Amino acid sequence: MARKTIVIALGGNAIKQANEQGTYEEQMRNVLITSKEIVKLLKAGYRLVITHGNGPQAGSLLIQQEAGNKEVPAQPLDAVGGMTQGQIGYMMQQCLTNLIGDERLQIPVVSIVNQVRVSADDPDFNNPSKPVGPFYSKDEAEQLKVIKPDWIMKEVKPQTVEKRFRRVVASPDPIQNMEAIAIRRMLDSGLLVIASGGGGIPVVYDENRHLKGIAAVIDKDLAGAKLAEVVGADIFLILTDVSNACIQYGKPDEKKLGVLSYDEMKKYSQEGHFGSGSMGPKVNAALRFVEYGGERAIITSLDQAFEAITKSAGTQILK
Amino acid sequence: MARKTIVIALGGNAIKQANEQGTYEEQMRNVLITSKEIVKLLKAGYRLVITHGNGPQAGSLLIQQEAGNKEVPAQPLDAVGGMTQGQIGYMMQQCLTNLIGDERLQIPVVSIVNQVRVSADDPDFNNPSKPVGPFYSKDEAEQLKVIKPDWIMKEVKPQTVEKRFRRVVASPDPIQNMEAIAIRRMLDSGLLVIASGGGGIPVVYDENRHLKGIAAVIDKDLAGAKLAEVVGADIFLILTDVSNACIQYGKPDEKKLGVLSYDEMKKYSQEGHFGSGSMGPKVNAALRFVEYGGERAIITSLDQAFEAITKSAGTQILK
Repeated sequence: MARKTIVIALGGNAIKQANEQGTYEEQMRNVLITSKEIVKLLKAGYRLVITHGNGPQAGSLLIQQEAGNKEVPAQPLDAVGGMTQGQIGYMMQQCLTNLIGDERLQIPVVSIVNQVRVSADDPDFNNPSKPVGPFYSKDEAEQLKVIKPDWIMKEVKPQTVEKRFRRVVASPDPIQNMEAIAIRRMLDSGLLVIASGGGGIPVVYDENRHLKGIAAVIDKDLAGAKLAEVVGADIFLILTDVSNACIQYGKPDEKKLGVLSYDEMKKYSQEGHFGSGSMGPKVNAALRFVEYGGERAIITSLDQAFEAITKSAGTQILK
Repeated sequence: MARKTIVIALGGNAIKQANEQGTYEEQMRNVLITSKEIVKLLKAGYRLVITHGNGPQAGSLLIQQEAGNKEVPAQPLDAVGGMTQGQIGYMMQQCLTNLIGDERLQIPVVSIVNQVRVSADDPDFNNPSKPVGPFYSKDEAEQLKVIKPDWIMKEVKPQTVEKRFRRVVASPDPIQNMEAIAIRRMLDSGLLVIASGGGGIPVVYDENRHLKGIAAVIDKDLAGAKLAEVVGADIFLILTDVSNACIQYGKPDEKKLGVLSYDEMKKYSQEGHFGSGSMGPKVNAALRFVEYGGERAIITSLDQAFEAITKSAGTQILK
């Protein structure tokens, strides 16, 4: 039997816990825990491709860029995306390389820079709502509108009474993983590839069919489904901070979902059981992967990952 | 005849000119000029691996980290190295992908995170002299010695009268490119790989033979020679801001070096013709590559790169 290929989409807590500052030591501790679970799957013989979020790391870089903008020019959001792919890719690559070496496995690990194409006509560009970077006062927000005419500022859930404005960008749908051919060749040559970090660097085609970066944030699970499609993955494993997706979430009759069919999950999704900012995009990404032809999509927590693959733990959506 | 493989080490001006601030637009303009020269070599049928420096980009990130350190934790120098590999890799990957597409060539471009191992016992760790990050006043430097006991501060060529202290780190010799196997497989599968950026992320083995980052900066040309060795390159092309290495540099009898033998170049090097901070490391890297078994090493400027490969322009060191 051919070895199964799994694309794993790591949740934010795989690298930085919500209650942490995000020091290097904290991040490396989380990456170590995550990597141990990944190596269990490698030992069991699965071929893996890894993707991950970048929210906290991109946020930190944007704050630092702003703080230092009198001395050195800030880079745009697409370049910041590249930076976080390098930063997180480095931590994961180092940690996985060490653990794989301990197990005497011969699997080289490589993180790549990865662009994901979106449409400049994506409807989300008309009403961007994804906050990025620092919080600003009303005055600062007004000034920024002058200095950065392409920035859209919105009042958001207040951090403090004064600082309650943030830049918002679109979250367009991923259309094409631009390094798909390279990733397939790398996987075929036996490499463990870390790709599509932070949902990929968002790019669009210009009038000459040249790629150029665009200010946006692509959902990392939707981009992960695209990655799973292009590598022909059998299983798409979405890891988050809960063991299962639930219906009637937070209500007395809340029910954890186990193994279910595409049609059942699609129905629950259409009934609005999953929050648009939390479980909703994960369920959509899982459904898409099965639509693309995947064998099964799984939503579960890191500590259930191995059991999910080997014993059907977590929420499993079958073709 | 088998296609020749060239490792190209791009000088700093390939991405940021000395007189520029380093905005994204400026950097992309330089990367475009550089990429056009690279594509000429691809069209001529050569297999390429690209490496590049990261000095200005790492410097900017360190200044930004310092400016934002009240809000978010600064990351160590090795993680900053990963960030610059992602940032510069992104710009080059995008630009090269566009130009390669224009030529209807089928060569996927991928930038990778790349660690380079050094020895924790490298003598340079005893007397570090490579300045990194912001300039500080004497008072600030004294305070930093307390807050960051592992930092070494040195008085350097003053930027201003007040701010004339900088952190210095070692520049150890590269021992091993940790992603060598992956890079070879990628090259063999027809990919154009961008690797060893900024001289690679410096790592050492700890007591468990696990890799861990270390505060250091590896010379990008010496790391490039190591990269050229591991991919079995035929030619190592070091691009800088002058067309040739010179003997008697800056003197009335200054003479540009053209094609010469390893032994001749070794003799000139031993006679001290090449500055330790400028041409010296490039000549050393070129000599090492020929020692490793390379066919020829070339030192020249970007605009002479194609002529150097096809018509022996620049300084050429033969086996």
